[in-house]
Amino acid sequence: MKSLMIIADGLGGRPGDVDGRTCLQVAETPEIDDLLSRRGSAGLMDPIKPGIRPGSDTAHLSLFGYDPYKYYTGRGVFEAAGIGMEVTENDVCFRTNFATLDSDGKISDRRAGRISEGQDELEKALSDLKSKKYPEVEVRFKRSTEHRGALCFAGPDLGGNVTPTDPHELGIRMPKAKGRDEKSERTADILNEVTDEASEILQNHPLNMERKEMGKLPANAIMARGAATYPDLPLVKERYGISASVVAAGALYIGVARIIGMEFKQAEGATGTVDSNILNKVKLALKQLEKGQDLVFLHFKGTDNASHDHDAEGKINFIEKIDRTFGWLNDNVDWDRTHLSFAGDHTTPIKYGGHVADPVPAMLAGPNVRKDRVEVFDEFSCANGGLGRFSGNLLPITLGYSNQLKKFGA
Amino acid sequence: MKSLMIIADGLGGRPGDVDGRTCLQVAETPEIDDLLSRRGSAGLMDPIKPGIRPGSDTAHLSLFGYDPYKYYTGRGVFEAAGIGMEVTENDVCFRTNFATLDSDGKISDRRAGRISEGQDELEKALSDLKSKKYPEVEVRFKRSTEHRGALCFAGPDLGGNVTPTDPHELGIRMPKAKGRDEKSERTADILNEVTDEASEILQNHPLNMERKEMGKLPANAIMARGAATYPDLPLVKERYGISASVVAAGALYIGVARIIGMEFKQAEGATGTVDSNILNKVKLALKQLEKGQDLVFLHFKGTDNASHDHDAEGKINFIEKIDRTFGWLNDNVDWDRTHLSFAGDHTTPIKYGGHVADPVPAMLAGPNVRKDRVEVFDEFSCANGGLGRFSGNLLPITLGYSNQLKKFGA
Repeated sequence: MKSLMIIADGLGGRPGDVDGRTCLQVAETPEIDDLLSRRGSAGLMDPIKPGIRPGSDTAHLSLFGYDPYKYYTGRGVFEAAGIGMEVTENDVCFRTNFATLDSDGKISDRRAGRISEGQDELEKALSDLKSKKYPEVEVRFKRSTEHRGALCFAGPDLGGNVTPTDPHELGIRMPKAKGRDEKSERTADILNEVTDEASEILQNHPLNMERKEMGKLPANAIMARGAATYPDLPLVKERYGISASVVAAGALYIGVARIIGMEFKQAEGATGTVDSNILNKVKLALKQLEKGQDLVFLHFKGTDNASHDHDAEGKINFIEKIDRTFGWLNDNVDWDRTHLSFAGDHTTPIKYGGHVADPVPAMLAGPNVRKDRVEVFDEFSCANGGLGRFSGNLLPITLGYSNQLKKFGA
Repeated sequence: MKSLMIIADGLGGRPGDVDGRTCLQVAETPEIDDLLSRRGSAGLMDPIKPGIRPGSDTAHLSLFGYDPYKYYTGRGVFEAAGIGMEVTENDVCFRTNFATLDSDGKISDRRAGRISEGQDELEKALSDLKSKKYPEVEVRFKRSTEHRGALCFAGPDLGGNVTPTDPHELGIRMPKAKGRDEKSERTADILNEVTDEASEILQNHPLNMERKEMGKLPANAIMARGAATYPDLPLVKERYGISASVVAAGALYIGVARIIGMEFKQAEGATGTVDSNILNKVKLALKQLEKGQDLVFLHFKGTDNASHDHDAEGKINFIEKIDRTFGWLNDNVDWDRTHLSFAGDHTTPIKYGGHVADPVPAMLAGPNVRKDRVEVFDEFSCANGGLGRFSGNLLPITLGYSNQLKKFGA
């Protein structure tokens, strides 16, 4: 049998979203409801556990069955892996932003005006970054979408307890990184050195001259945060004995999935925004299962983007867009041999615009699921579902229904 | 936003309480039910986890989000902090009883006839207690209500693995304390020395002569139990980033709350019994929120007292008394900006008269709560509520709805 795990990021909502109803309640989701009614069972899932407010990375670790209290080292390594950098046990990685410093060296924009072109040239200009103090340490920088990127150091005696050089504030100078232990102090040293060098290179880069002339903010600094060593965790092959692919567009999700050993598959037109061609993602996911993968993890990001932007209409529209792909799934999944799970990774209410700890609606569908009486997929109906309330572990739970789990004990 | 967490001690019951119904089912609770119906969601909470029979201290640690398997060292330190002693990392503390030894040195009453006057004098007489063998160790004794008190030793190399000198039995001599490791042996030594000294002082105390003359049992010994070192735990400020107050009357609850960094507030007329002026407590709790505290923990003890006394009528009456304070809360809480949680800390059935592991009814009310269809707050209705079944952590769960939680991960 096969397993398909689908996550709509930030899917969960609160009654305050739209006049006392959540976006998921307001959205028309006939296809999801049809699947749930005919083949499914619903429940409420605490992404990590009740009373814990999840990040995206910690939530996904937990959904994949990896206790984030045991395995989470920080965000940087997932970001780096997510944008295609090859990271290993020797790496310490940071998530970076291209940023704008004014003539006094103070931060005037944390995203360099959301720079949208020329980043390849800037990446190239930074390809020889090096620490003079620690020449044995390999330095790698890679751009991602817009202002985003990652910076990795590979070498001996590096540590991940490094404070960010992105203060999440404007009008002040970039703070120097500090390490909270000996190895991390060394790593902070390298970060400060490399960051200074990057600023010098970027300051005089022709592209930034051009940007200034055009009235755009120059990308004359990189700021780093989310320092992380490589997490010491078993791959899905080892832990569950399965092969798995990830179909996603957001770097962080791709990164977590790659680090636990899923193969990344790029869908045409997948953007990680509300405009993404998510039907292509769904088709690619099913193709991966047909090609022999035991499990595919399919991630939609648009729900969370709209939630962070306090955009109820955008969230409702994106949920309805997801619903249409479920129409295709209803018709094309081999329902005799497949279990599908669908849930949020956390709740992001429209008014609050950030992650909260409230549990998310979750459903499982397939031949071995004990169908319950829930016919509508939302935060309220799912509370009465046959799955009850459970904490994370959606991936192994899905595998379980597909008889894909190894036995613990005799 | 603000959080108000209300615990009615031993609130949960069993069908055998009153002719097949629990006391909570029998009690008339129109105000609690009104709050739940209009603004709330209900569930069942296992104070620690299913199949664990909680103590009051371990249950409260768990409700506060502190895993008792990780943080619990014993009862003594909470009792000492709860009666206002300043305890630190250097302390080992015991809960004590004034007791009566007969002329053969055998225990004839574990509570010195529930002594109700003169304890201040006895405390004063014991103010110079000292170990001759270990003069560097500071010895402090403080009385509490009736026969209750606490004894603390502060100094280097003390341990908390010390057996009690209160055998919970009559007609035998007080057993000598023993230590289960080197530091605890030293501590047991000191306890035995100090206990002997205390008996000598008390034996000849004028107050005890008087008591004997009046036909009362003398308080001629102190018995110790619940040895505990100071638990190594993060304060609520650090763990959750919040300020918090506790409004309670029972020493143990005040103690747990103080040790995790809550500020104790004394309500006028609060006694920790069924006669307590609990409306004053409720008013003080709300005042604390208005004064700027992020969270207030409000504790009612009467439900548990009546349960331990097998007094169904007393428990029902006290629940109805609590209900009347909910009438005041319904009218006076700022419901746009406050989340309230209400639950038991464990189940104490009338017939059994002790703590059992059965889950307790729990509810959350406030603007961000996904209202469910439960309209009656009792052990049976709550089982069908929108919160499902969860384990402890009521404090962080409440904070979550009020957007007061720190994020774990990025």
